[in-house]
Amino acid sequence: MARSKDGGRYRMSATPAIVMAEIFAVAAITLMLVSVLHFRGGFSLKSNNVVRLFNAHLVFMLFGPIIFTGQAIMAFKTVPGRRKVRKIVHMLFNLLGIFLGALGLLAIFRFYKQSGWSPNLHSLHSWTGIGVMGLYVIQFFLGFTFFLFPGAKKNMRTDMKPWHAFLGLTIFILAIFTSGTGLIERFRFLQLLKGREALLLNFTGIAIVLFGLSVVLSVILP
Amino acid sequence: MARSKDGGRYRMSATPAIVMAEIFAVAAITLMLVSVLHFRGGFSLKSNNVVRLFNAHLVFMLFGPIIFTGQAIMAFKTVPGRRKVRKIVHMLFNLLGIFLGALGLLAIFRFYKQSGWSPNLHSLHSWTGIGVMGLYVIQFFLGFTFFLFPGAKKNMRTDMKPWHAFLGLTIFILAIFTSGTGLIERFRFLQLLKGREALLLNFTGIAIVLFGLSVVLSVILP
Ligand code: HEM
Ligand code: HEM
Repeated sequence: MARSKDGGRYRMSATPAIVMAEIFAVAAITLMLVSVLHFRGGFSLKSNNVVRLFNAHLVFMLFGPIIFTGQAIMAFKTVPGRRKVRKIVHMLFNLLGIFLGALGLLAIFRFYKQSGWSPNLHSLHSWTGIGVMGLYVIQFFLGFTFFLFPGAKKNMRTDMKPWHAFLGLTIFILAIFTSGTGLIERFRFLQLLKGREALLLNFTGIAIVLFGLSVVLSVILP
Repeated sequence: MARSKDGGRYRMSATPAIVMAEIFAVAAITLMLVSVLHFRGGFSLKSNNVVRLFNAHLVFMLFGPIIFTGQAIMAFKTVPGRRKVRKIVHMLFNLLGIFLGALGLLAIFRFYKQSGWSPNLHSLHSWTGIGVMGLYVIQFFLGFTFFLFPGAKKNMRTDMKPWHAFLGLTIFILAIFTSGTGLIERFRFLQLLKGREALLLNFTGIAIVLFGLSVVLSVILP
């Protein structure tokens, strides 16, 4: 993808984009943890305190479909060694991304159930969120079948590869879209306007967006 | 961008993606207009009724940085004729996108001022929104200088082209991200949960996301 139709090229290597991605990842994680641990009493997957369940949703969704998925996408450029090794790291990071995402869904479903707050899956956030996780699982199985399963034909792989990359990036960007709608809902539910916690949430969103941008750049750059 | 490093290709033309984009554009516009005109009393850039100002923000932001920008991006594939003609259509659609976006900002600034609701630029939505519009203006002037101004050197153009395309798509996707956070804020402010208006807003978001996806696909496909 580094070359456009009429020969234009990005005259820059992927390394700075990868470094930026890691910086924004650390920033997003730090901001989210301060917000959840310092301001809102921590998180837990099993608790009578529904706030802690809710917080677990935020933490697991950040680590799973965003941070680990991003790392999985970059693995072909960050992991040293043979292509086979990179493929396996890519697969394992995605597996972890899905697993943490599933725990994050578990947390929010428990929150809904225990708090009796409102009907499940009523918001745009929840719709794209469920969509992301569904597509992610499908993409994982397709990718596994085509690229790791030894029986897959070589020319089939070549045909599938650009679609696999396109769908993967789409899912990743959609997860970032979903985190944006989630963060602003949280902002409104907590009735923030200004002050430290408001800034914290907004900067978490900015860090996540810049992380996403850097990951995409790292894929495009040679 | 149609060719990946090791020769994989998308074996599909851009036409279905363009058709899909136009269908989702019509869907998003229709849903938004029903929501604003039928449910919330219409829109206006100058009114003592702050709700109508607010609604103008939604309508102009949908048409400007989303629909027209998307059309501008697709112009190289949708407009018949010489490359020069396409470039000019691309430029004019982007100009219109910026102009409508500026009117949309005017509307929301007036809303803030007349309603005295809360400090300006306090939310993630407003931050990425201002960012999108600022980047859009910068990108417009850079693009104009490099690709339409007759003095620009040919090899400079070739160097800038992939970055121009990348930044352009980034701005477009960030506008879609911003519309998602905006729609969910509206959802929460109106305290919707279920019912026709809730579905309307959520489907507007889905239509916008699918429009964005189709536009990006139409760029990538040959
Ligand atoms: C990291 C930032 C995130 C925040 C701050 C956040 C916040 C929230 C909030 C406030 C809710 C309850 C309101 C609602 O249902 O709309 C919620 C529900 C939900 N979230 Fe998130 N979320 C985040 C990320 C994600 C991601 C990345 C996904 C999926 C990939 C996701 C999937 C869901 C789903 C499916 C629900 C609805 C559960 C139900 O209706 O039963 N969230 N989230
Ligand atoms: C089309 C869907 C959109 C909806 C439903 C929407 C909704 C809203 C809402 C509810 C507000 C007031 C709350 C706040 O400040 O966060 C707002 C403000 C704002 N919107 Fe949007 N918006 C949309 C699209 C956009 C787009 C595409 C942009 C920019 C590219 C944008 C830029 C802004 C800005 C800059 C403000 C803040 C104005 C201020 O703080 O003085 N919006 N929007």
